[in-house]
Amino acid sequence: MPFRLDAAAADFRESFEQLLHMKRETAEDVDQIVRDIIADVIARGDEALIDYSRRFDRIELTPETLRITREEIEAATAACSNEQIAALELARDRIVFFHEKQRPSDLRFTDEAGVELGWRWTAVESAGLYVPGGTASYPSSVLMNAIPAKVAGVERLVMVAPAPDGKLSPLVLAAAHIAGVDEIYRVGGAQAVAALAYGTETIKPVAKIVGPGNAFVAAAKRRVFGQCGIDMIAGPSEVLILADKTARADWIAIDLLAQAEHDTAAQSILITDDPRLADAVEAAVAARLETLPRRAIAEKSWSELGAIILVEKLENAVPLADRIAAEHLEIMAVNAEELAAGVRNAGAVFIGAFTPEAIGDYVGGSNHVLPTARSARFSSGLNVLDFMKRTSLLKCSPESLRVIGPAAVVLGKSERLDAHALSVAMRLGSGLGQG
Amino acid sequence: MPFRLDAAAADFRESFEQLLHMKRETAEDVDQIVRDIIADVIARGDEALIDYSRRFDRIELTPETLRITREEIEAATAACSNEQIAALELARDRIVFFHEKQRPSDLRFTDEAGVELGWRWTAVESAGLYVPGGTASYPSSVLMNAIPAKVAGVERLVMVAPAPDGKLSPLVLAAAHIAGVDEIYRVGGAQAVAALAYGTETIKPVAKIVGPGNAFVAAAKRRVFGQCGIDMIAGPSEVLILADKTARADWIAIDLLAQAEHDTAAQSILITDDPRLADAVEAAVAARLETLPRRAIAEKSWSELGAIILVEKLENAVPLADRIAAEHLEIMAVNAEELAAGVRNAGAVFIGAFTPEAIGDYVGGSNHVLPTARSARFSSGLNVLDFMKRTSLLKCSPESLRVIGPAAVVLGKSERLDAHALSVAMRLGSGLGQG
Repeated sequence: MPFRLDAAAADFRESFEQLLHMKRETAEDVDQIVRDIIADVIARGDEALIDYSRRFDRIELTPETLRITREEIEAATAACSNEQIAALELARDRIVFFHEKQRPSDLRFTDEAGVELGWRWTAVESAGLYVPGGTASYPSSVLMNAIPAKVAGVERLVMVAPAPDGKLSPLVLAAAHIAGVDEIYRVGGAQAVAALAYGTETIKPVAKIVGPGNAFVAAAKRRVFGQCGIDMIAGPSEVLILADKTARADWIAIDLLAQAEHDTAAQSILITDDPRLADAVEAAVAARLETLPRRAIAEKSWSELGAIILVEKLENAVPLADRIAAEHLEIMAVNAEELAAGVRNAGAVFIGAFTPEAIGDYVGGSNHVLPTARSARFSSGLNVLDFMKRTSLLKCSPESLRVIGPAAVVLGKSERLDAHALSVAMRLGSGLGQG
Repeated sequence: MPFRLDAAAADFRESFEQLLHMKRETAEDVDQIVRDIIADVIARGDEALIDYSRRFDRIELTPETLRITREEIEAATAACSNEQIAALELARDRIVFFHEKQRPSDLRFTDEAGVELGWRWTAVESAGLYVPGGTASYPSSVLMNAIPAKVAGVERLVMVAPAPDGKLSPLVLAAAHIAGVDEIYRVGGAQAVAALAYGTETIKPVAKIVGPGNAFVAAAKRRVFGQCGIDMIAGPSEVLILADKTARADWIAIDLLAQAEHDTAAQSILITDDPRLADAVEAAVAARLETLPRRAIAEKSWSELGAIILVEKLENAVPLADRIAAEHLEIMAVNAEELAAGVRNAGAVFIGAFTPEAIGDYVGGSNHVLPTARSARFSSGLNVLDFMKRTSLLKCSPESLRVIGPAAVVLGKSERLDAHALSVAMRLGSGLGQG
């Protein structure tokens, strides 16, 4: 049974705080193991990758077979159905279209003092994309991680994916091909992250690593941060649905379960002002669970972490939504647009009854890599800017330096950084004076 | 003596790689201590802050005296000279002007399929600014960290700064006031970071923490990341100067020393195509060091980490500059603009002889919090977007869902996420078929 909260209850505040701070994942303590793996890859390069792949993935590799060949990729693509390839291509085109609108503009201007200022955006030279193995190996995630990099202008996009027992998903390889990935290596885990960060004989290092992974991958990304850039550390996923009495209980139920079927640590929450809808949704979820292939996962998530919150008016859900800061926020209500406009913290908002969250996972065009575990309070979904960086530009003339330079001399002296002050004063033809 | 490298030498490639990978900082292993401090602040709140302040800062606080009063801030401001206040205000106005141009735009559009898409930018609700104590307590850094937050629209901006022996820099308090900081607490170290992340009875938690600090502060920021957002972890600072024979050796020398005087781990590098300039700069640095107040620091940095690299043509410096990926890049050459346009990896570029780096530290208007330790390969200086986040918006109509929905059903089924596929199929009035 999911939690049932009522905003009119005396203990609501307390129950809501408990819901917010519920522990959904126990972090495995793998940091020590990961540290050793990284050091080993730095020391032994390809040889270490080959050893770990033998041990963890039961696959015998050589420096020559680390990289997946063009022929293998073509064979994988041929193994997919036409319908699947067409769906991936539709998704690709829509993701490209959306992300192209995120390309930032350079700027150069001269201000009142005559100082020329501005900035220039450039893409990172290379990026690495981690793709998990096994059941979490999703072609849609390949598109979502790779395409923003390519739209940003990243010249070398490298993918790594473990091949447990030698197996790789044909759809994942096809998606990589369709997204324009430049190199693919059959290696995973912390060792793959280390290879991307530090390089080996076969895998050249990259400037930024993105993509989800298990506890080992997450720990490795944290450790190599600084040597290269990383994206966010993905946590358990969540959906929050705001619905009024106009919403259909069966649609809400399947959307709650679409979140819950991901992972037992996923969280699905409904907030409604209609007690009858609340009951109907709970019943619809129970009924639907009976026939769901991933019932075991979805049922555990829903019964242990799911929640239905009753509020007096749906407007009252907005501040609660901001506290929850959900990765995905669906709004099915007559005033959906108005409610959407009022919410501040959410990864993505799905407005209206005909926008199930799964649309955003696959073909909406926006990115499905979104801030999880309440981090929408301070971070954004993956986007083109994650693969770019901004360089500031400054240019003073002798005249404009005369306007703003004296204040810099004052501040340099105040901070007791004499060379700072002098570097300006000398160009003004003066010393630091007696000050 | 600084390193001298010659691009024409047989071993140049090797020497340059050594220069790039020179270890400039030995990270203190304080993670265990920091973990305990954070746990203690979570458990005991204000009481823990008061205990640590007694132990580390030799100051006796109460919950009532943690916060710095308006009267204290006014007294601090009054203790500064008019010249200093005017310089801070000039800097503030210029930083505001520059950063206002970084405010991003929201977007909403309808694509060919009839899907409404877009995004909305919002500021984080609250942010915390860490300001170090002692000699690294710079009023300019207060402006540079606080102003982007205020321009972004952060409603609650909290500053924390240790007060060793009860002392706080009046200029730092004045800068906080001038920048519009809302609350200031006299607490520092890992305990202050923990208070900002988790809150205490007196300090409410914030969504994002920025600002430089020592090894304890850096480790604490890494640890609380996820609970709240953090900015980059600041490493040792560097300047790279490209100069041809038209440049003045004494100006280059003072600019190299302005970097070196920050920290013994700072690094100053000159690349020139003029052997006589190289010699003249080395002599000018030696001469200037004689009279520099922070000689001990600057001399150690320059002699142990400084470098002069000779190239045949200054254009050849561009790929080296991209490898070095300097925080600060100064270009003093006839074709400075052209060279600047060619560089990809740099935190900020200072174009022409009249743009010493110190201008960017204080009054240029651009931010002086820039990517250090080669991280300009993948990150940008602090900016308004660091205090904002983007929420994606999606809205399908029954008609547009009919256009793109079937592909989502195909992909959902391919990923064996039946509830995903069903959530779309039900709205299309169909099941999952036999597929």
